[in-house]
Amino acid sequence: MPEDFFTQHKPLLDKAVEAIQTRGYWTPFPEMPSPKTYGETANEDGKKAFEALLNKPFPLDQPGATGQVGKERSPFGMDLGITYPKADLDALIGAVQKAEAEWRNAGPETWVGVSLEILSRLNKKSFEIAYAVMHTTGQAFMMAFQAGGPHAQDRGLEAVTYAWSEMSRIPKAATWEKPQGKNEPLRMEKRYRIIPRGIGLVIGCCTFPTWNSYPGLFASLATGNAVIVKPHPGAILPLAITVQVAREVLAEAGLDPNIVTLVAHEPGDDVAKQLALRPEIKVIDFTGSTENGVWLERNAHQAQVFTEKAGINQIIVDSTSDFKGMTRNVAFSLALYSGQMCTAPQNIYVPQDGIDTPDGHVSFDQVAQGIGEALTKLVSDPAKAVEILGAIQNQSILDRIEKAREFGEVIVDSKSLQHPQFAGACVRTPLLLKSDASNSSKFMQELFGPIAFVVATESTQQSIELAKRGAIEHGAITMAIYSTDQKVLDEVADAAAEAGVSLSCNLTGGVFVNQSAAYSDFHASGANPAANASLTDTAFVASRFRVAQSRAHI
Amino acid sequence: MPEDFFTQHKPLLDKAVEAIQTRGYWTPFPEMPSPKTYGETANEDGKKAFEALLNKPFPLDQPGATGQVGKERSPFGMDLGITYPKADLDALIGAVQKAEAEWRNAGPETWVGVSLEILSRLNKKSFEIAYAVMHTTGQAFMMAFQAGGPHAQDRGLEAVTYAWSEMSRIPKAATWEKPQGKNEPLRMEKRYRIIPRGIGLVIGCCTFPTWNSYPGLFASLATGNAVIVKPHPGAILPLAITVQVAREVLAEAGLDPNIVTLVAHEPGDDVAKQLALRPEIKVIDFTGSTENGVWLERNAHQAQVFTEKAGINQIIVDSTSDFKGMTRNVAFSLALYSGQMCTAPQNIYVPQDGIDTPDGHVSFDQVAQGIGEALTKLVSDPAKAVEILGAIQNQSILDRIEKAREFGEVIVDSKSLQHPQFAGACVRTPLLLKSDASNSSKFMQELFGPIAFVVATESTQQSIELAKRGAIEHGAITMAIYSTDQKVLDEVADAAAEAGVSLSCNLTGGVFVNQSAAYSDFHASGANPAANASLTDTAFVASRFRVAQSRAHI
Repeated sequence: MPEDFFTQHKPLLDKAVEAIQTRGYWTPFPEMPSPKTYGETANEDGKKAFEALLNKPFPLDQPGATGQVGKERSPFGMDLGITYPKADLDALIGAVQKAEAEWRNAGPETWVGVSLEILSRLNKKSFEIAYAVMHTTGQAFMMAFQAGGPHAQDRGLEAVTYAWSEMSRIPKAATWEKPQGKNEPLRMEKRYRIIPRGIGLVIGCCTFPTWNSYPGLFASLATGNAVIVKPHPGAILPLAITVQVAREVLAEAGLDPNIVTLVAHEPGDDVAKQLALRPEIKVIDFTGSTENGVWLERNAHQAQVFTEKAGINQIIVDSTSDFKGMTRNVAFSLALYSGQMCTAPQNIYVPQDGIDTPDGHVSFDQVAQGIGEALTKLVSDPAKAVEILGAIQNQSILDRIEKAREFGEVIVDSKSLQHPQFAGACVRTPLLLKSDASNSSKFMQELFGPIAFVVATESTQQSIELAKRGAIEHGAITMAIYSTDQKVLDEVADAAAEAGVSLSCNLTGGVFVNQSAAYSDFHASGANPAANASLTDTAFVASRFRVAQSRAHI
Repeated sequence: MPEDFFTQHKPLLDKAVEAIQTRGYWTPFPEMPSPKTYGETANEDGKKAFEALLNKPFPLDQPGATGQVGKERSPFGMDLGITYPKADLDALIGAVQKAEAEWRNAGPETWVGVSLEILSRLNKKSFEIAYAVMHTTGQAFMMAFQAGGPHAQDRGLEAVTYAWSEMSRIPKAATWEKPQGKNEPLRMEKRYRIIPRGIGLVIGCCTFPTWNSYPGLFASLATGNAVIVKPHPGAILPLAITVQVAREVLAEAGLDPNIVTLVAHEPGDDVAKQLALRPEIKVIDFTGSTENGVWLERNAHQAQVFTEKAGINQIIVDSTSDFKGMTRNVAFSLALYSGQMCTAPQNIYVPQDGIDTPDGHVSFDQVAQGIGEALTKLVSDPAKAVEILGAIQNQSILDRIEKAREFGEVIVDSKSLQHPQFAGACVRTPLLLKSDASNSSKFMQELFGPIAFVVATESTQQSIELAKRGAIEHGAITMAIYSTDQKVLDEVADAAAEAGVSLSCNLTGGVFVNQSAAYSDFHASGANPAANASLTDTAFVASRFRVAQSRAHI
């Protein structure tokens, strides 16, 4: 049966291997929630499936359960009322170790086949997962569907593909024949076996519970490691459904379902730290705060630790051939999911003397005003705005907006919007502030959420210097440049490469700096403090397994 | 010029890429010190070149030199009298950073081309390096030539090959075209740039200064990192010559020679720790004690740390079809370079009830005696013995032999031998002790040097359990099994895989458990405490570089 999964999905895997090498556009998981691709009743079925989960214990039969936990509340204004098994860590890890011993012997084709089957079934549950993501993260439905469903599945498949690609480069056996002059050569047969590290721990975040967790989950699983998934207490449901699907597939394949387990917990307890220091945990994938990420890097010595932490994403405005296109594009990037993305821009550097455009020179204030107007226009109709903004995930983001007002001159203030469908939804438009290079203590810190600065600099040179230093010192995942000058574009490309940050040039159309496409865009580089790894490259998978060899004379 | 190096060596690189995939026997560096391959006067020239270095400052023109250091003494009984520039770390690292900025922009083909040219020139200096290795490590000439020269070069080339293989899988550019239904597709051009981590630090050991350092040195260099080489104070010369050659090639290529530098230092100072914690150091390759290796893993947070540490290598004797062949093979493994190899066996587990052989059942004592006799015979002629044993590298190994005598019943005692050529050479035959499973506190610790135990166990089952537990808890790089029973062989293969240790089965001829062949054998697995990485696999190279990308609409 696991062999069937591998055989069945092998054509897909082959295409994915080609995709990560050529890095053009490709996906097997359609991103449009269209009845044509997902089925006429898919949306309704998914919504019903989601609603059927509310206000009861989540159906997850795991060993070592000691009561129930869970207090998720939708940023759209309702308590989910779902509880999850609370795990006794000793009992759970004991069961996982037993399962891991079985999984480790199953071999790469089973690991990969099962992983691909899980992804394929997650794709079929994209609507259910979309509602789960929406009502935990506050993402509007379309983003919850795309980023929480197909795009997350893409990132999972990408990780499986890298894992397969690396594992399949190691031959199962080799004949070694060393010449001995006139004597008979020395002849040996060598066998190579892929051995997993042990148990992987995936620590999820509350804004992209699936998108940010699937790479680690599937990279570990596809290399033979058992996986314990520890969601953020604010966004358990999407990962609980994921674990449920994984366990179903494993059981169907005649394997121990405890190869994938969930550890849900209450906010404020130390379950994450307890788990992270367990000697059985050999790989950790973390998305969250710099404080927690650095703690893991410095304390979980027994594990290979992959972290995605805070950063400051920046835009350099030097000149543009399309002023309106630029301001619209930037405004959308600031508004999308209320800036609650690790790729959302925060600081926009503009020379104090203004910039050149096809309609002539435009002053600094006009640029700031232009972005502000585009933003105001974008969110002027609440019904449309909420589909871009989504809702604010948690109170600390609201507090941050209040505090940030003092960090600069307000260009456009953050306003509450009434959600037409969800009366209790917490919707806020972005706060756009004006600052200048001398106030870097204010804008050179991650202010996660809908907060952005237009910063006056002495020159584009200073903008580049600020952006580079900001990324190197504070971390960054994305950077954008607007310039009509090839010399400036080249210089910024060098600066971005030095800072290890992904650069987008002159985006004025339908692509936004926040977006990262699987198989083509490397998400984070691992080369600055925002992350110690990339999603996904070879380094992300290669140390999740080892090779054991044996040799004997023939 | 650097492009010429790449073009010139590309055919070799292509063959090496094939070799690491097929993992059969292959090498471009002949291991026999034959006049036919290396030239009629190669040995004499190499010896003269070595002797010309003695008793004077080593010619190395590096920035930030503040006086001279160096007190190497040959284990064959003479002071080398060579001194090396003592580095002011701030000044040196400043110069290296400047060089690194240039190197980072040179790109993969230059990094790899220069690395291959360095290896090719090191190969031509194999005799000079052999004498340098011999008179720092105590290896006999043949091993010093092979392990210090061609085999070390193989391991360096292997690392370059893995680096190239990984880097060349990332396209320089891609066209991304996303369909938009009836509208024009979104079209972007994406560019990918390999970015090195920064500066690599290579910390050498005193027994295999080149073999154990070349993988890290060349893996870092070939991925665009500058490299600072910090040799063990007892074995500086082989790496000083290496650095000299690297700097020559870099200068000839019109590049800053400070891309590769040497930091020699006195024993007992804290230069290694100072260097390891410098924020500029982003990769560390270490070979040495568990204490120092773990310290690096836990403290050098700013760097990717690769360590090879202590371990206990073990042999399980269950039965054999060639008793004489087995005892000869084991005896040679114990004697080779006086057990001063990270791959040398220490514990030999034999059932207390004896083993089956073609000549009938052989008791435990007969097995122990058989290995003892083979050992005694092997070292009976001092002239031949010293060519196997070499000399003892340092006093602490001699002290350990004295202390170890109390750890079991002496089967064969360690004796001093007079070296026919070097009156002052410190030559010792191996100490072979008898013990039993209940005394594991004595034999379950690494006793680096010519010390081995024949351990009586209840059964082969207990032998396997001991060997597995020993490797998992204390680390191990090699394991060997002698058995005529396929079931036992399979079970040991499983145990070895679980412990992440490389297994050799029924070695009775010209291959020894200590030997590890580049391109075919993975040296260490990274899956037990003996090492956190393998020399060399993808994981060893993949995190030494990152990818920076930029994208723009077409």
